[in-house]
Amino acid sequence: MPETERIAILDNDGTMWVEKPMYVQLFFVMDRLKQMAEADPALLDQPHFKAATKGDLTYFFGLDPHAGGDFKELMKTVFDSHAGMSQDDFMLMAKEFLETAKHPRFGMLYKDLTYKPMVELAHYLDDNGFKVFLASGGGMSFLRTVSEEIYNIPKERVIGSNISFETRMTDEGPVIFRKKGLVDPLDDGPGKPVNIELHIGRKPILAAGNSDGDLHMLWLARKSGQRSLSLLLRHDDAKHEYAYDEGSEKTLQMAKERGWIVISMKDDWKKVF
Amino acid sequence: MPETERIAILDNDGTMWVEKPMYVQLFFVMDRLKQMAEADPALLDQPHFKAATKGDLTYFFGLDPHAGGDFKELMKTVFDSHAGMSQDDFMLMAKEFLETAKHPRFGMLYKDLTYKPMVELAHYLDDNGFKVFLASGGGMSFLRTVSEEIYNIPKERVIGSNISFETRMTDEGPVIFRKKGLVDPLDDGPGKPVNIELHIGRKPILAAGNSDGDLHMLWLARKSGQRSLSLLLRHDDAKHEYAYDEGSEKTLQMAKERGWIVISMKDDWKKVF
Repeated sequence: MPETERIAILDNDGTMWVEKPMYVQLFFVMDRLKQMAEADPALLDQPHFKAATKGDLTYFFGLDPHAGGDFKELMKTVFDSHAGMSQDDFMLMAKEFLETAKHPRFGMLYKDLTYKPMVELAHYLDDNGFKVFLASGGGMSFLRTVSEEIYNIPKERVIGSNISFETRMTDEGPVIFRKKGLVDPLDDGPGKPVNIELHIGRKPILAAGNSDGDLHMLWLARKSGQRSLSLLLRHDDAKHEYAYDEGSEKTLQMAKERGWIVISMKDDWKKVF
Repeated sequence: MPETERIAILDNDGTMWVEKPMYVQLFFVMDRLKQMAEADPALLDQPHFKAATKGDLTYFFGLDPHAGGDFKELMKTVFDSHAGMSQDDFMLMAKEFLETAKHPRFGMLYKDLTYKPMVELAHYLDDNGFKVFLASGGGMSFLRTVSEEIYNIPKERVIGSNISFETRMTDEGPVIFRKKGLVDPLDDGPGKPVNIELHIGRKPILAAGNSDGDLHMLWLARKSGQRSLSLLLRHDDAKHEYAYDEGSEKTLQMAKERGWIVISMKDDWKKVF
């Protein structure tokens, strides 16, 4: 297999690191919404500011597409909370969160809750001439703040959903700001092959995911015209992590029909974190 | 300098290959418009189809922003001519053009009209641990068909202006199609830092361009916080290539004021192609 064709793409939330009790980035957003409402109490009229201020996780659980929430609405809440600031400021804020915030159940930093066998896979692929990309349904920039540290995956190989940017000219030169507005498509479902084309221009020969948002990407790998591997991670280890199939039903069914490999966290892994 | 920071970004048209008598991609588009008008003569009511069919280069020269044309209008003409087809079909068509079409003055394939000293620079940087990217005002996909062959720059390191894509599900899986509609921003002027953030997430420490469309990118390199190099290529060799400053006036002025390095094709290069 020529090196140019050795493209591997890994979903992040639920495939490379923990996504329960809710997406890591949502905890970050809650902090931000709370800060914003402290500065401007009029914002408390809006349900997500109110929920963040009260620490009402249930409200945010309900936004999760795995639990039947609307992904676009969710991402609007996520991205709007950081619109208007410079990209450099955003990156500092995200990095600080990931260096300090801890998971409510495991008491560890979120960035340490990566799946050991998946990180080993990424390193193994890297050692064998693969270019390993992340394709996250979550925010591209958020993940880029730690991708090099936790996975050895460089920033330019992190694909994700996006707010739109703009360049403002200042006396000190161009500065990137975060504008309101989701970039279409979000990096989920049919948006994943689109963003793979935009960022890579090649089909992956290995794709790994864990939910229906990865279905299109997993199928895309089978269309590379090369020998390929589609891996679906199943969360079935409530003892060491979580057990849930919600939001993955279609892809589990498709994997069965098409012979994609299903990884059982319970049966196939010695260690989760 | 750590390897992660060694990012170099090179503009393509007029910096890495010839852009006169007009952008290479415009010759490709003329072929396509002609074909479309042959299939549907009603299209000849529109000036660009008429001009393409008559081989009226003057009409297309006028679209060039270097000659005062509107870049957005130009790109709409370029991209709309390939909307509606699959991305795979587009790539084959672009590749075929670049493997056969010849430059009207030099009689060589366009893809062979790359600037030898700039290609040497790209290889030198590559040999020294740099990640070398192309940032083209022109179409990203068009350039990706030959970037590996002519520059040894992999597809995922080609940034450019874009049509929007969509995934259509078929019985054989997901297929990417080219939709009507320019992706905002085009990869020109203030759009270049935006797309650099999207595709790389780091500021370049070396940037090279040749026109006012590169001004923001050249300035961005000076803001990397590292030792950096901004290179402006000046077309002043009418004998071996072309001599023109139109569309580069602001950047030439800025280079003078800020001490960016101006490369004279006439004085500094032994060989152009």
